[in-house]
Amino acid sequence: MTDNNKIKIGLFGFGTVGQGVWKVLRQAKNAHAEIRRICVRDITKPRATAVPEGMLTDNAEDIFGDKEINLVVELVDDAEASFRIVSTALRHGIPVVSGSKAMIAKHLPELIELQRENDTALLYDASSCGSIPVIRNLEEYYDNDLLLEVKGILNGSSNYILSRVFDHGEDYDSALRRAQELGFAESDPSFDIEGYDSLFKLIIITVHALGRFVAADEIFTVGISHIADCDIRYAREKDKKIKLVAQVVKTAPEAFTMFVMPELVDRSKYIYSVDDEYNGVVIRGECYDRQFMFGKGAGGLPTASSILSDIMARRHDYRYEYKKMSYLNRPYYTTDVTLRVYIRYNRTPVPELLIFNQIHEQLLTPGNKYIIGDINLNELIANRDIFNAPDVFIANIPIFFIDRD
Amino acid sequence: MTDNNKIKIGLFGFGTVGQGVWKVLRQAKNAHAEIRRICVRDITKPRATAVPEGMLTDNAEDIFGDKEINLVVELVDDAEASFRIVSTALRHGIPVVSGSKAMIAKHLPELIELQRENDTALLYDASSCGSIPVIRNLEEYYDNDLLLEVKGILNGSSNYILSRVFDHGEDYDSALRRAQELGFAESDPSFDIEGYDSLFKLIIITVHALGRFVAADEIFTVGISHIADCDIRYAREKDKKIKLVAQVVKTAPEAFTMFVMPELVDRSKYIYSVDDEYNGVVIRGECYDRQFMFGKGAGGLPTASSILSDIMARRHDYRYEYKKMSYLNRPYYTTDVTLRVYIRYNRTPVPELLIFNQIHEQLLTPGNKYIIGDINLNELIANRDIFNAPDVFIANIPIFFIDRD
Repeated sequence: MTDNNKIKIGLFGFGTVGQGVWKVLRQAKNAHAEIRRICVRDITKPRATAVPEGMLTDNAEDIFGDKEINLVVELVDDAEASFRIVSTALRHGIPVVSGSKAMIAKHLPELIELQRENDTALLYDASSCGSIPVIRNLEEYYDNDLLLEVKGILNGSSNYILSRVFDHGEDYDSALRRAQELGFAESDPSFDIEGYDSLFKLIIITVHALGRFVAADEIFTVGISHIADCDIRYAREKDKKIKLVAQVVKTAPEAFTMFVMPELVDRSKYIYSVDDEYNGVVIRGECYDRQFMFGKGAGGLPTASSILSDIMARRHDYRYEYKKMSYLNRPYYTTDVTLRVYIRYNRTPVPELLIFNQIHEQLLTPGNKYIIGDINLNELIANRDIFNAPDVFIANIPIFFIDRD
Repeated sequence: MTDNNKIKIGLFGFGTVGQGVWKVLRQAKNAHAEIRRICVRDITKPRATAVPEGMLTDNAEDIFGDKEINLVVELVDDAEASFRIVSTALRHGIPVVSGSKAMIAKHLPELIELQRENDTALLYDASSCGSIPVIRNLEEYYDNDLLLEVKGILNGSSNYILSRVFDHGEDYDSALRRAQELGFAESDPSFDIEGYDSLFKLIIITVHALGRFVAADEIFTVGISHIADCDIRYAREKDKKIKLVAQVVKTAPEAFTMFVMPELVDRSKYIYSVDDEYNGVVIRGECYDRQFMFGKGAGGLPTASSILSDIMARRHDYRYEYKKMSYLNRPYYTTDVTLRVYIRYNRTPVPELLIFNQIHEQLLTPGNKYIIGDINLNELIANRDIFNAPDVFIANIPIFFIDRD
């Protein structure tokens, strides 16, 4: 694509983010990009943003068959439909910008293959952490073997809820409702609060951080919905906050692990101060120690501005190279690591169900029981059903696996 | 450069950062880059890092005449020599990675021209903010008209000194000595403490943020060397910290201003928590609000890891496109803006020498005089000699020029 050519976009989906992209493109006068057609499921649905007559269609062929369109932007809130659209576009040789993290996290190996076969590009920086350029920086800037860890708060809506509960003393349910009213929460709130949204982002990040794709069901994932007042009290007593944290971390020069779970975050940590709907990512490496990136992780306009960055990258034919996937001695994924965890429970007999390597602290009263102990991640995975019980809440207490700094 | 070709580096300079690059390249096994020759001024000088026999030379021709060398890495601590090396390499068509911000800030327009004429590349992300990828992100990710402001702590060594003075009650001179012992300070400490290092970085950032080159002598620059106990007390009373802040900011849709000076930073600001030798940069834009990047801004290894990122970018023929320089309606530089400042003085009769638009607060005692007032930046520039007087200290009190969020 030369500098003189305009990007002509076929847009799929016109919800909050889609309408944000419409607005952002009108403000970015030097973008040389315009939306040519918008495909939606229901063209009669009332929308806040007015578009010219004939702009909306419900027929995907109006986009795939339009020879003028040289970029598909896919912002559809349905993973199956989203995969059909993206794979069809790539097969037509049309590059795609997508914000559908659930779909990408599921299909990434096929999507990489489709990009290669059809010599075209799929960009999805907007899919991870809204406006923070995590993927692009991992792909381009931390493009070496020095990376040790990527860890952060990747979901704005659960973080908003925890902030309301933790710092403002609201109850969990009203905080969740408020997040939904503000448009931070996904249409299915369990994505946010059960950790899946963070998980999908973590899977994508790991491909670009360490060159390894790990499927969702191999990764221990627990969210925040079982948090109770006693957990908040416990954290406060220890001068910590509870945050939902996703992390991928080297456990040895040749191995890494990854998981999503609540964490008791110490005041000295960068992510301690990441509140409300913000995301924050810490990238740790040999030589450069820690880098911290921070920005709005939810909401239509921040995500739309990130989509704009992906759109403009296509003006220079940018594509992800997935360089780290072809590195020699890529580290392998392991779940055979010891974690220190806080587990609070009531009726579920946690101490009988889980084998700890070591127990550091245990409190047993009728109303309030918890264990702090060291346990193998494999033991947690083998017994992951325990954490579906509403009376059980787990939080990671971070310990160092290796510190090669 | 294809993926199979190795990068063969001719390195100029083998001080702290040069030796850091040597170390980092040995750790980054997938970098496919090696140092082939190192040119230094004095090959007999003792150095902490041992290199193979014959690696060192004091003859630049050993590098420029070596057909195998496909990248020059220039880390020479002398702006004139550095410009000779970089311009010679570019004229030979050899791409260059440079860490010499003073030289780049001075010669950037010529260096852009030289890159174009010789169809080769000069990368210098390491020159701004050590390990934080500011330039690359401004060039690639914030590649649009939405940018409103880039503001931050760009000099690790002055920030280290202010942290020691402010948070640890050390006196200024011993804090400066410590920064030098730790290798944070430039060989000429006035670069750090008088604000020039921040200024050079700001000039480079502005080229990539707004597509405009502004020469150093057009920019109001004041450092921290006149700070006194009463300034620290004043800041503490107001629950603020004093930081050395560089900023480029849109003052209207068609105009921007820039300056480097101490700032009274409010506790609510991201940069309030940037302490010790760290750098922190806030990027503000329409739609995405504020992004914050944070990392180590001084020291041999963090800078070396940033040099490594630039080296590896050359494996994919990456070059800065300077796209924003060709934008229509680039904003123009203005110094006709009103700032609110704190000026503390003693013998210098500041109120007689400067015309304020408005004075908000004034204290006159024999030992401790200060004014808080609104003043035009042109008035400060016209009278900049005042700020050379050791009894005068100025700090910015940030006010909003425009808030288009």
